[in-house]
Amino acid sequence: MPEFSTLRYDAAGGIATITFTRPQKRNSFSQRMCLELAAAFDESDADDAVRAVVVTGEGEVFCAGADLDEGFDTSDPSPATQEYLDRIGTVDGVPRDGGGYVALRMARSTKPVIVAFNGSAVGVGVTMTLPADIRVAGRSARFGLVFARRGLPTEAASSWFLPRIVGVPKAMEWIATGRLFGADEAHQAGLLNHVVDDAAVLETALDIAREIVANTAPVAVATSRALLWTMSGASSPWYAHAIDTEAVWTLAGGPDVAEGVASFLEKRPAQYPGRVPADLPKRTPRWPEVPDDVDVR
Amino acid sequence: MPEFSTLRYDAAGGIATITFTRPQKRNSFSQRMCLELAAAFDESDADDAVRAVVVTGEGEVFCAGADLDEGFDTSDPSPATQEYLDRIGTVDGVPRDGGGYVALRMARSTKPVIVAFNGSAVGVGVTMTLPADIRVAGRSARFGLVFARRGLPTEAASSWFLPRIVGVPKAMEWIATGRLFGADEAHQAGLLNHVVDDAAVLETALDIAREIVANTAPVAVATSRALLWTMSGASSPWYAHAIDTEAVWTLAGGPDVAEGVASFLEKRPAQYPGRVPADLPKRTPRWPEVPDDVDVR
Amino acid sequence: MPEFSTLRYDAAGGIATITFTRPQKRNSFSQRMCLELAAAFDESDADDAVRAVVVTGEGEVFCAGADLDEGFDTSDPSPATQEYLDRIGTVDGVPRDGGGYVALRMARSTKPVIVAFNGSAVGVGVTMTLPADIRVAGRSARFGLVFARRGLPTEAASSWFLPRIVGVPKAMEWIATGRLFGADEAHQAGLLNHVVDDAAVLETALDIAREIVANTAPVAVATSRALLWTMSGASSPWYAHAIDTEAVWTLAGGPDVAEGVASFLEKRPAQYPGRVPADLPKRTPRWPEVPDDVDVR
Repeated sequence: MPEFSTLRYDAAGGIATITFTRPQKRNSFSQRMCLELAAAFDESDADDAVRAVVVTGEGEVFCAGADLDEGFDTSDPSPATQEYLDRIGTVDGVPRDGGGYVALRMARSTKPVIVAFNGSAVGVGVTMTLPADIRVAGRSARFGLVFARRGLPTEAASSWFLPRIVGVPKAMEWIATGRLFGADEAHQAGLLNHVVDDAAVLETALDIAREIVANTAPVAVATSRALLWTMSGASSPWYAHAIDTEAVWTLAGGPDVAEGVASFLEKRPAQYPGRVPADLPKRTPRWPEVPDDVDVR
Repeated sequence: MPEFSTLRYDAAGGIATITFTRPQKRNSFSQRMCLELAAAFDESDADDAVRAVVVTGEGEVFCAGADLDEGFDTSDPSPATQEYLDRIGTVDGVPRDGGGYVALRMARSTKPVIVAFNGSAVGVGVTMTLPADIRVAGRSARFGLVFARRGLPTEAASSWFLPRIVGVPKAMEWIATGRLFGADEAHQAGLLNHVVDDAAVLETALDIAREIVANTAPVAVATSRALLWTMSGASSPWYAHAIDTEAVWTLAGGPDVAEGVASFLEKRPAQYPGRVPADLPKRTPRWPEVPDDVDVR
Repeated sequence: MPEFSTLRYDAAGGIATITFTRPQKRNSFSQRMCLELAAAFDESDADDAVRAVVVTGEGEVFCAGADLDEGFDTSDPSPATQEYLDRIGTVDGVPRDGGGYVALRMARSTKPVIVAFNGSAVGVGVTMTLPADIRVAGRSARFGLVFARRGLPTEAASSWFLPRIVGVPKAMEWIATGRLFGADEAHQAGLLNHVVDDAAVLETALDIAREIVANTAPVAVATSRALLWTMSGASSPWYAHAIDTEAVWTLAGGPDVAEGVASFLEKRPAQYPGRVPADLPKRTPRWPEVPDDVDVR
């Protein structure tokens, strides 16, 4: 495993927990954190024992947005920034936006992702989490899509993810004003799945992760996750039908479904033999790993 | 009309009611029910007197999911299963998923569809209803997208429909955990249009159907229904503009609008002469009937 | 500026206010209002001093739908109607639907649009507002998608916009029944961002506009607005990533972000030099101005 300096990666009981470890910097999003966060998802994807990923932070703030010490301008890069730019690569000839680099890595995760907002989040601290599956926050957490208050447009591919989570009107209200909003408003809009007491955030997220570990099959969850995000952008349900038909056909005759049905009838916990990505149905859609693979339209 | 053994088809007062009749099997979804349900929509589409379709079930459960007596594995089919497979056909060379066969037939209905959940629904009992327009349940009903608890992926093209109804985060929470959830949670997420007392479910659904029968024009409703589902997957509002422009232009000069405006000004019920599909505007989008027609992307 | 006879256009304090001025006709949507409303958005887009647009009406009703005195049938046009048809043009060979003409002009606005429903709205009075960003109404306002009660299909490209705002099930319930619904139901479904006391509607809308004027950068807001609507119809987040990467890269090294960060660190209001459309990042997506530009699919 790579050595991380901006976060901690732990895996136990089927759950990988990624914890931001720069509370003194309010876990602000630095170039290094960008690369490490993507690398942490490489770890969780590669480890068959991991069934779900929880992302959280140390301290009172989940993530205060981009690290202003590094600034936004990468047009005349320092050696450290140049190394970062070399590693993240380009899309259509332009150095990739770091928030999008992380968001699209998270979107490509084969394990479900749960965000435990240990505190407030602004800017990329919100948008990088949009491709996660489930978001949990405490009652006192506040959120802000503050980009336009700094002269910046929405980034991290959030213009694709956010309308599919909260709808365009709420998204545009938050973006055009750039104002902060509370956990209740975020919950009502659908950005948060659950709002709980501040002290219960991480445990709530872990409970959901444990429910996944205890009950559902890795291949089935990974296939469904890929289907949901892909089809939320597809033009026709016939496309979904063609893909899920092959997935159902493949899995229905295999050992996971045999175990799933047997354990259900015998009222015992299931032990699924299927592994990801080895046993994924062959037409399971995957987001591309690198921009050059892609018809970006 | 074909003889049905898993459901009852009644048409009266402009409303077709499809009622599952295997309460002793908790209305579980069998190969025969799959075929009969699709055939029932052929009936409702073919009958000009039918203006709305209500789907419900006998007994305490709406549908307990796939009939486990038949199993999921169709790779070594019995003669009965072979006959079923021959009838549903293939998509991209694979025997079509039965839930998707029904769901896409329901999506193609030219009459609006209202589901009256007489009780709980799990698995395909939920997903086959997603292309309906309006869902009503009682307070004690429970729902589950339990697929991954049996090793199965989401099916019935639900990965296309579900994000357009409840958004990806709620969908993924339900799918990744496979847990049961109540009517209130389903309502809050947008899966249910109305939650009422258990005893009032069917009557509430019929009231909505009666409101449709009494007030709106068949051609206008069928055209709008086709537009809504198609455009929810289309990339540009200009496409909607091109299609609805032709629809407005065609209908505006026709007898339905003349009657609609006259009845409004005279404050009397309208009697619309237009019939479906004969009088549909010619560019009205239609989901294809068979997979081979389709660019499934 | 053109002379308007159906509305009033005022610009002050960074806010353009468009007010319908035919309360005696319940601000019904006439051919003239269609053209004037589109022209008013040409004004607001052309004026750099305008940062947000508020649309409202005089009297007790926001807009009672199409002006029935003009009727819907344009197949045998009067000279006045012929002049109108010549000005709105055609899409795919058919005279453009007037509601769609306005809606797509509003969608193309480079300034955020806030609708202050001074009272109830039905038909095109609702659908023409769907490409606005934020909708505010009073508690007693009522709404109706009454098209099918007059024999008409959904128009104004609403089949594209409405599912992205309220989801298909709620949209289809409103459309298939054609019934009126109250502000609370509209708010719960996501059609309204805010419901307030009737007397506070315009002031609430203006407060949101003032918050935009005071805090966010014109170029950043215009870019984000274009991104949000475009990507809500795009198939892949990689497309958003390619576009927003270029936008971030362009703006991050420019004067708006320098001012945005400096004003933030100095805790003072920002004065953004960037102008729309001159300083828009070059890949910012734009809806086409005329149908012939477009692949309408």
